[in-house]
Amino acid sequence: MVQYSRTVDRAFAALSDPTRRGILERLGRADASISDLAERFDMTLTGVRKHVRILEGAGLVTTTKVGRVRSCRLGPRRLEDEAAWIKAYREMLEARFNRLEAFLERTRGAP
Amino acid sequence: MVQYSRTVDRAFAALSDPTRRGILERLGRADASISDLAERFDMTLTGVRKHVRILEGAGLVTTTKVGRVRSCRLGPRRLEDEAAWIKAYREMLEARFNRLEAFLERTRGAP
Repeated sequence: MVQYSRTVDRAFAALSDPTRRGILERLGRADASISDLAERFDMTLTGVRKHVRILEGAGLVTTTKVGRVRSCRLGPRRLEDEAAWIKAYREMLEARFNRLEAFLERTRGAP
Repeated sequence: MVQYSRTVDRAFAALSDPTRRGILERLGRADASISDLAERFDMTLTGVRKHVRILEGAGLVTTTKVGRVRSCRLGPRRLEDEAAWIKAYREMLEARFNRLEAFLERTRGAP
């Protein structure tokens, strides 16, 4: 289950900030310009650009500049590897707890 | 789907490092001491302690000290909120792509 890839590192780092998760949720409803996002999150344009750059670096947001407006949309990455990692982790965790439980059962059952 | 909680921030930040993901996978097989982990990951004790402290702060690892040995085990958090966030995000992303596709279909179909 190990994926020592930089893309996974970057995606999890990008998701570790509530504003960046908020930006992704906002873009899930519709594409937005940097100014739209600045207004929505009550931030400076510079502040939004910084977050968008991190999301872009993680492959979670694509931006295109038309004239003076930079438009942001989701993609291309879909958090597949991250979802897979967490799923595998949770299964492993459950298996581990089950083994511990079975061990405790046996211990308790012993005379 | 918004969860502006510090616990989610901390968990994603903790998962953004491949060594920390590796430590969690290792502890999924069996509890381990700081020295075990240092040997396994070919790191200094100080380096391992730093990673473990971040995992502990995120609620993903619990440590107990018996004599001079600090033992690490998984828990108590099970990445439930993080799994839920990513699941909701992926569903939203899919819905968005479906809407875009439907829009393109209609556009193509126009005379």
